Amino acid sequence: MPDAIFQSFKESASPEQGPPRLARLRDEMRAEGLSGFLVPRSDAYQGEYVAPADERLAWLTGFTGSAGFCVALLDTAGVFVDGRYRTQARAQIDTDHFHVVDWPETQPASWMRDALSNGDKVGFDPWLYTPDQISAIEDGLKETGITLVGCDNLVDRCWPDRPAPPVGKVRVYPETLAGRSHAEKRADLAAELTTRGERAAVITLPDSLAWLLNIRGSDIPRNPVPHGFGVLHDSGRVTLLIDPAKLSDAVRQHLGNDVAVQPFGDVATVLAALEGPVRLDRASVPQWVVDELKTAEVETVWGADPCVLPKARKTEAEIAATREAHTRDGAALCRFLAWFEQQRPGTITEIDVVCKLEECRRGTGRLLDISFDTIAGSGPHGALPHYRVTESSNRVLGEGELLVLDGGGQYEDGTTDITRTLPIGTPGGDERASFTRVLQGMIAMSLARWPKGLAGRDLDVLARYPLWLADQDYDHGTGHGIGVNLCVHEGPQRLSRASHVTLEPGMIVSNEPGYYREGAFGIRIENIVVVQKAEPLTGGDDREKLCFEILSYAPIDRRPIDVEMLSRVERDWLNAYHAECRARLESLVDGEVAAWLAAATEPL
Amino acid sequence: MPDAIFQSFKESASPEQGPPRLARLRDEMRAEGLSGFLVPRSDAYQGEYVAPADERLAWLTGFTGSAGFCVALLDTAGVFVDGRYRTQARAQIDTDHFHVVDWPETQPASWMRDALSNGDKVGFDPWLYTPDQISAIEDGLKETGITLVGCDNLVDRCWPDRPAPPVGKVRVYPETLAGRSHAEKRADLAAELTTRGERAAVITLPDSLAWLLNIRGSDIPRNPVPHGFGVLHDSGRVTLLIDPAKLSDAVRQHLGNDVAVQPFGDVATVLAALEGPVRLDRASVPQWVVDELKTAEVETVWGADPCVLPKARKTEAEIAATREAHTRDGAALCRFLAWFEQQRPGTITEIDVVCKLEECRRGTGRLLDISFDTIAGSGPHGALPHYRVTESSNRVLGEGELLVLDGGGQYEDGTTDITRTLPIGTPGGDERASFTRVLQGMIAMSLARWPKGLAGRDLDVLARYPLWLADQDYDHGTGHGIGVNLCVHEGPQRLSRASHVTLEPGMIVSNEPGYYREGAFGIRIENIVVVQKAEPLTGGDDREKLCFEILSYAPIDRRPIDVEMLSRVERDWLNAYHAECRARLESLVDGEVAAWLAAATEPL
Repeated sequence: MPDAIFQSFKESASPEQGPPRLARLRDEMRAEGLSGFLVPRSDAYQGEYVAPADERLAWLTGFTGSAGFCVALLDTAGVFVDGRYRTQARAQIDTDHFHVVDWPETQPASWMRDALSNGDKVGFDPWLYTPDQISAIEDGLKETGITLVGCDNLVDRCWPDRPAPPVGKVRVYPETLAGRSHAEKRADLAAELTTRGERAAVITLPDSLAWLLNIRGSDIPRNPVPHGFGVLHDSGRVTLLIDPAKLSDAVRQHLGNDVAVQPFGDVATVLAALEGPVRLDRASVPQWVVDELKTAEVETVWGADPCVLPKARKTEAEIAATREAHTRDGAALCRFLAWFEQQRPGTITEIDVVCKLEECRRGTGRLLDISFDTIAGSGPHGALPHYRVTESSNRVLGEGELLVLDGGGQYEDGTTDITRTLPIGTPGGDERASFTRVLQGMIAMSLARWPKGLAGRDLDVLARYPLWLADQDYDHGTGHGIGVNLCVHEGPQRLSRASHVTLEPGMIVSNEPGYYREGAFGIRIENIVVVQKAEPLTGGDDREKLCFEILSYAPIDRRPIDVEMLSRVERDWLNAYHAECRARLESLVDGEVAAWLAAATEPL
Repeated sequence: MPDAIFQSFKESASPEQGPPRLARLRDEMRAEGLSGFLVPRSDAYQGEYVAPADERLAWLTGFTGSAGFCVALLDTAGVFVDGRYRTQARAQIDTDHFHVVDWPETQPASWMRDALSNGDKVGFDPWLYTPDQISAIEDGLKETGITLVGCDNLVDRCWPDRPAPPVGKVRVYPETLAGRSHAEKRADLAAELTTRGERAAVITLPDSLAWLLNIRGSDIPRNPVPHGFGVLHDSGRVTLLIDPAKLSDAVRQHLGNDVAVQPFGDVATVLAALEGPVRLDRASVPQWVVDELKTAEVETVWGADPCVLPKARKTEAEIAATREAHTRDGAALCRFLAWFEQQRPGTITEIDVVCKLEECRRGTGRLLDISFDTIAGSGPHGALPHYRVTESSNRVLGEGELLVLDGGGQYEDGTTDITRTLPIGTPGGDERASFTRVLQGMIAMSLARWPKGLAGRDLDVLARYPLWLADQDYDHGTGHGIGVNLCVHEGPQRLSRASHVTLEPGMIVSNEPGYYREGAFGIRIENIVVVQKAEPLTGGDDREKLCFEILSYAPIDRRPIDVEMLSRVERDWLNAYHAECRARLESLVDGEVAAWLAAATEPL
């Protein structure tokens, strides 16, 4: 294992600490006259990663997954987790004191309805909940007489050694990579506010703030965003609420005079001084902000965070930058794949794989962080789509197994995310057939051209169809949006039956169908693609068409492919993709890796 | 041409009669203090076919298409038609007196906003408009001061020789074909009303009424439904409002004591005597019914026509019956196809084709009607998806052309609808490539298996994808629902991006992708399929799957196929389909047709 590595394999679980902490929390609840208190995983920024100061759910329950929440009542407590995390939750928490509740099958409101009675009050920290989340719970509690009450965070009161909030340095994001100055972005968004008669918008999503001001942060791992809020005024000026210690002189100079920096502690004063109408995004703003503006009698209107859609439509400069990042990352992956192909069954573990892959990415000399904890699931672990190896789960890769390897890097010029499924020894026929179907779905999506105006929900089926023909499917969307040196999961567009957001040129999504046979094996193949206007084809009609440009280039292992199952179109696609891999990557690798690349990209 | 044929090729257009009729209508408008009057194509039953008494739009304007409406104002008049009918409308109406308006691009409300002023009143006949339609227009007129006013039908006042409403005989629909007695259906639906606390539901869709009471009618061509309304009471009893002259003793006996027949003229009395809440379907009930119940102070609630979903879920008996009908119809089509293959370019016309096809269907001895006017579009006419040949549009089929032939029959045991695209001589490469892509899309949909719970919108793309790869597409849904000896277009399910109705076992839909090159050629290939539970496949996961069973069997012309473009899966499908055509049909044809069938179903 290298000396320094981003990913950790430690078990942070300590189930025995949960019960006494829960007891202390209950004392606080009683003192406040509450029958319950909600403890979410989220912080005020609603992201996937939180700072140690915000690890309240883990502190209270032991559960360290990236999604879930605890509903602590006086005589029972439920830890609500989705399908990905049920096994992990049972291992990490003391199930004598906490019940693991299947969520979203059981909603917190219906669970509370069964456990509480008319007149009971349940507290929550308004910093950690959005209006959408609160409304959903309140709707479920209608006519029960059970009410939600915003209050101090009672966990923080019981947590004497709670870490301080992070003070990660902010850096300037070069305009050459962003393609537009923050002055231009602010002016455009201000014009949109003016058109709608809005005086300001409160921005609480850190990646929105980072995008708007062309800055990046370092408060949390994996997501290079700064914690802080912004107010965009209809003048185009921004009030940036952030710990000033995070800002160097260079950053302040970059922000300039139209971005007024104020300590985060001034947030209430800044909000109270606003003139309405002020736009708030009910899907992301903390309820606390809503309450403050109401108290200050500032008129508010619901509307989308104004940064979300423009951020999703990447500029030419961002696309060019991220193309570079993906190529570099592809070359790093080739170094890994060349190494991996030489490993024999029974000789390496999942942790070895994660370390080697990170080492290859670090070898680029440009890796700022990994973009998420690498998923390296061998054999049955491959069937857990979000598996994260720990010291206790770690296993040796055995003969005939498949390894699902899903990882990415944060580079200044882009965020990558790529999955390959790799054989160790000789996999069986079922694995090969499903591997080929997953590949066929991934190819169908890659080749898609469609009339402008469609959403992810219209295309998602293309990647599933080859699996459906064999009665197989996968329980996740086909793809998520992704940032440029920002979050690896970025909205609003997705390739999913649930996504109604129209796909537009410049939007980046992953294309990652999979197949998971519980207890046996998993398969996932993922490239990142960007929506582009399609060049018209001879003989085509005159509708405007869109298509995907592929950003990820690294060979797809041909050994598990059942070549007989591929159509000519599919085989042509694979051969062309591999030829392009070779063309893009051969100058970036040498020696054994170059030889491996040449062999791995031979046409089928 | 045979002596008697259902289809007519006459031009019913008489543009010269429009202006004097419009003048008379305007006198009536002035007398009522109205600035306009709405003249829809629809009757009170909102179907696609109307009786001569309801041909108000044609009487006034000359336009005979199956969709559209006229907004007659004092100094101008607009005939609103969709893309299918623009050419036809310009030919049929006097465009000095009527403007052809592109609809739905221009909505009637926005057109009226431009032509009228504050205080103007526009009349409409509340029998002919649904609450949904009225609300949509009223929404568009908001804040203009222009109002809609329900009134007498002013067209009827000007139409001295207006035909009487039809008095078509009703027949009993055998329970052996329906699979359930009307008593069972009434009881089930009444139970649903009771569960929702509704006392009755008003049923105004004739196919709902026909389905509910296991009867069929003969008031209008193509759709074997009786004109009349029904009230389903929560007791399970039905009040049937219908001209008693339509009912034989046998039908009355079939209806029994729990179906009380009252003359249609009693409708106001029957409605006023109801106890609420009464369910009305705002998408189909005439506004007149809503107004009457309001006047009578009967409480109403909006809800779907209770027959629509149960009618869409065909019983095993209905599926077995319609399977028979489709097989019989397929054999009739084979007789046509064997004849057609012997015709040389330049020797037959579109009308010849329509007559021959109807003759073949009549040859079954079981044809009650055709299910819609046969579409026989050769060469450039094929590019008009809803082309209907007339004496003046009729053309000779020329060398190298494609013929789109789309027709169906009404048999007692089922309604058919099948499209084949047939070459005359040797079509060019573009035609062959697009033909093959349309076929690939149709095959992809035919092979689909999917996890239970999806709607037409989730599957529609499967049929388009092969065309999309060539920048081609079609401007209609992939498929519509279809009845069993009922309407050839039957809701609520469709295979369309716009359809959110979950597909359930027993639902019948068409699978008919196409491609239309304006002024050049058209292609469409259509089979009817029924949703079935899929038998689990070995190696599949445990999600419940659905699939399509094909009902239509008749060879697909192999001559325009570019075999090189087909995948092995696609070729296998076509060969298996043709083998099944031969197996099902060979006992139903003989002589030259049998020889043709054997040759036409040879594997590729």
